[in-house]
Amino acid sequence: MATQTVGEFLFDYLYSKGIRTAFGIPGDFALPTFRWLDRSKIKLITMTHEPSVGFAADGYARVNGLGVACVTYCVGGLNMLNSVACAYAEKSPMLVISGGPATFDRRSDPLIHHKVRTFDTQRRIFEEVTCANTVLMDAETAAAEIIRVIEAVQTQCRPGYIEIPYDIVDEPVKLPTRRNKEVLTSDPENLEGALREAAEMISRAKQPVIIADVELQRHGLTDIAVALAKKLNIPIAATLLSKSIISETNPNYIGVYSGGLSEPGCKNYVENSDCVILFGAFITDVFLGASAAKLERKNCILSTTEKTRIGLHGYDDVLFKDFLEGLRAAKIKPKAKFKNPNPSVTPKPLTAKERAEPVDVETFFRLVGLTMKEGTNVICDTGDALMGAIGLRTTKRNNFLSDAYYLSMGFAMPAAIGAMAADTKGRTIAIIGDGAFQMTGIELSTVAKEGMNPIVCIINNDGYGTQRHIIDGPFNNIHPWKYTKICELLNYGKAVKVKTKGALEATLKEAFANTKDMYLIEVVVPRDNCSEPLRRMAEHMSSQRDVNKRKS
Amino acid sequence: MATQTVGEFLFDYLYSKGIRTAFGIPGDFALPTFRWLDRSKIKLITMTHEPSVGFAADGYARVNGLGVACVTYCVGGLNMLNSVACAYAEKSPMLVISGGPATFDRRSDPLIHHKVRTFDTQRRIFEEVTCANTVLMDAETAAAEIIRVIEAVQTQCRPGYIEIPYDIVDEPVKLPTRRNKEVLTSDPENLEGALREAAEMISRAKQPVIIADVELQRHGLTDIAVALAKKLNIPIAATLLSKSIISETNPNYIGVYSGGLSEPGCKNYVENSDCVILFGAFITDVFLGASAAKLERKNCILSTTEKTRIGLHGYDDVLFKDFLEGLRAAKIKPKAKFKNPNPSVTPKPLTAKERAEPVDVETFFRLVGLTMKEGTNVICDTGDALMGAIGLRTTKRNNFLSDAYYLSMGFAMPAAIGAMAADTKGRTIAIIGDGAFQMTGIELSTVAKEGMNPIVCIINNDGYGTQRHIIDGPFNNIHPWKYTKICELLNYGKAVKVKTKGALEATLKEAFANTKDMYLIEVVVPRDNCSEPLRRMAEHMSSQRDVNKRKS
Repeated sequence: MATQTVGEFLFDYLYSKGIRTAFGIPGDFALPTFRWLDRSKIKLITMTHEPSVGFAADGYARVNGLGVACVTYCVGGLNMLNSVACAYAEKSPMLVISGGPATFDRRSDPLIHHKVRTFDTQRRIFEEVTCANTVLMDAETAAAEIIRVIEAVQTQCRPGYIEIPYDIVDEPVKLPTRRNKEVLTSDPENLEGALREAAEMISRAKQPVIIADVELQRHGLTDIAVALAKKLNIPIAATLLSKSIISETNPNYIGVYSGGLSEPGCKNYVENSDCVILFGAFITDVFLGASAAKLERKNCILSTTEKTRIGLHGYDDVLFKDFLEGLRAAKIKPKAKFKNPNPSVTPKPLTAKERAEPVDVETFFRLVGLTMKEGTNVICDTGDALMGAIGLRTTKRNNFLSDAYYLSMGFAMPAAIGAMAADTKGRTIAIIGDGAFQMTGIELSTVAKEGMNPIVCIINNDGYGTQRHIIDGPFNNIHPWKYTKICELLNYGKAVKVKTKGALEATLKEAFANTKDMYLIEVVVPRDNCSEPLRRMAEHMSSQRDVNKRKS
Repeated sequence: MATQTVGEFLFDYLYSKGIRTAFGIPGDFALPTFRWLDRSKIKLITMTHEPSVGFAADGYARVNGLGVACVTYCVGGLNMLNSVACAYAEKSPMLVISGGPATFDRRSDPLIHHKVRTFDTQRRIFEEVTCANTVLMDAETAAAEIIRVIEAVQTQCRPGYIEIPYDIVDEPVKLPTRRNKEVLTSDPENLEGALREAAEMISRAKQPVIIADVELQRHGLTDIAVALAKKLNIPIAATLLSKSIISETNPNYIGVYSGGLSEPGCKNYVENSDCVILFGAFITDVFLGASAAKLERKNCILSTTEKTRIGLHGYDDVLFKDFLEGLRAAKIKPKAKFKNPNPSVTPKPLTAKERAEPVDVETFFRLVGLTMKEGTNVICDTGDALMGAIGLRTTKRNNFLSDAYYLSMGFAMPAAIGAMAADTKGRTIAIIGDGAFQMTGIELSTVAKEGMNPIVCIINNDGYGTQRHIIDGPFNNIHPWKYTKICELLNYGKAVKVKTKGALEATLKEAFANTKDMYLIEVVVPRDNCSEPLRRMAEHMSSQRDVNKRKS
């Protein structure tokens, strides 16, 4: 076998790990790396701006299990930092590959363009938002370093960082001969003790419920939780962040639990439960919802990659996977059949009278629910595009994507591109507020370049709507675009502006029927309109942030 | 005097330091701070996307001496990191104000939305790209901290970072009673020794020359260098980064020196000089130009805020300002009048034959030089928009802005907004490649919102043109926009697409004559066309980066 270069090895290895598409923007330090990417079996999608490169790779990673963003030094990498921070916060396994100055450039610390403080500045910054990082200063050790970082990304489901000096990427690589991979194991006594206690608690419980959170999906363990629920007749709720990791048509599925933002039937069921089993949960303020969630710790079993807690006490060194498998195998008497407190209901069709009425956010989601087809991917941006979607049921696993914890505006358009690249079968609908669309919506340019066919809905409430409900002022105003003109700018797709419920229904039907074309639908809603969950969340935030309300 | 809140104090203090306009995007943690900004005497310009917020504040800072960017926690701040890194690298005095979680939110380290790793993640990251930073965890010390950070920004001309927990901003502030401001002084003996040696070297020199670099402008010391040059009849060159800090109509001005990229007459003069006086110089690879600059260290006097070097040896503890003032006061015999090797020449008008020819980059800059009026501000993005502009002479000080060292694409459009806010008198022309325009050009939305009247020229060479000349491949291709349609999307401005020299000339004349309207001019140039300096730079980079050329 001929010796590979560092660049060849890197992209061959990524291909072997399931990467078929990478996202990037080249730059002079990264060009030699991009040439190897171009020669590999991996397709590159060049985006328009680095913040979008990161979100696209994140979206791809959430669907595919691993994603790759390829950029240049500092001006590329640092411009993508927010997207990588999002992936870190929400545990998305993406790899950042950055070009860099040559090893010989770095010898006497000269001022090379793109350099900020020291040559190490970019790597140090990325250390804060990655689980493993390396600068390939030596071709001899490059392969071992590449393998180390990618394994960490896959094991920990967090971003990783590989910086490649441009003179190293063309050098011959040396394959590592022997590797001692660290294998983590549970402490057997602790595991047995935790399982015994959990099994007793579940056995005693009258109304147990499972909350399936996002770590299950990231670590490929969802099936175990689903099997356990089925075996024991225990209902499963998702969270805003994990929505759709359990198929939303699963008979055990009872909806989204998120404190005060929950679907009502689901909220009552969970908060009246005497045994809440939290699998892979991020206990976040969004999870806890507007007003604090009413979960008593003594009634909870919590198992994640980081901790195991039964009631009020914790068990060290119990692996998430071992605990899940142990529970599935445990002898627990199945519960009696339960009545789903929040079954999937087909939304009510529009009445003739309604057709002429102005659209509002709740009707928008009702009509999306009515018209979307089996297998549709739903990608939601921050704000009411997300809050309004809580009750929207998708049909397949992992059909719903959003950055529901990190809540960075501008996520949905580029993440939808990543999701479409990873799942070329289902139709994708991206739902985006007008403020978020002004941030990254222009990435429709890449949709056009790649000939993709999403349905992109802009919910236009004339400004930063969520914030208007917290504290309003002129800072929440944005310039009113003629959004439909973007299709002319890009010479691509069909654009429709709708103001009535009837027009929206007709347009959605047309868009879902026409799978050839990209559709941009501008949905005009009243400036003060919002969904009920958003209203509750904004009210809660306002009571904290607005000094007048805080003191009164 | 009534007690002020932290928010009132902050913006009053910034107003007293010359801030009239701030740039920002709000977010829930930042809303209470934005409310104080809204109530202050400072105008806020809300942008569409955080990377642009940073560049706008940087552009404003370069013209005004201090700039402010106001954003929310992580999703805002981290999304602006690249722009702040640019300001750090190029010494632009801008202040980052970030909202943040409340002090009470931080007590038990819960997962609050927007949080990445720890509550300190954003501050730690900004530590890498700022000269001073603080999180205002206590209203008692807030005023002293605000003053400390802003003084550091102004003294060091680097970015600073202030994070404000949202519950602190409404608290009463306590003014610091006594302050011991550190005053740096030169070591008197070292200063005297350095000045004596420099004066002797200048006295001996047959062909001395001053290179006036960007620190002179940042620290308000340009006048001293200009007076010295006038008194001693010494010519002055600028660098790409400092272009226009000396008025380009000054009789002592001989053009841009930047190694192999220099204006020819200037290059010969500098490289044949027996005494090159470098004031405030960044010795960067861009400064040194494509092939290495031919400057012998033994013939150089280098004085910056960081070091003083005469020939081969250095002097510690000599302040930049003291050295400059000392040299101006030194008794040195003026040189004989010199003949300007590169005087300002009015470009040749178009001939009738030329009018029908396709535009190329060099003719574009020639026509801009011919048509632009006194006082026009020229803002250039990275690539040929910058390299092609080397010989373009502006008429007033600080009329030319670019990120000529950090070279981040996407700088020009938002930086032009910052420059226009700081200088409302002169007309502004922004010159941007098509690749860079796809990154941040949509910030024309803010131009429309604010009713500004720039002339925006897109040099459309169908992709990442600079990179095509280094290593080409499909990764350098971008989607061809119908750029002129952007005026319809934004419902603002006049758009013209030009392909011939005659059409460009007519359009530039119309645009400069019509000061009411924003003009977007798409200038179509051949795909392989570029300026001579860019060709030289790309050839040099290609010989380093392309392994085939490196080995041959």
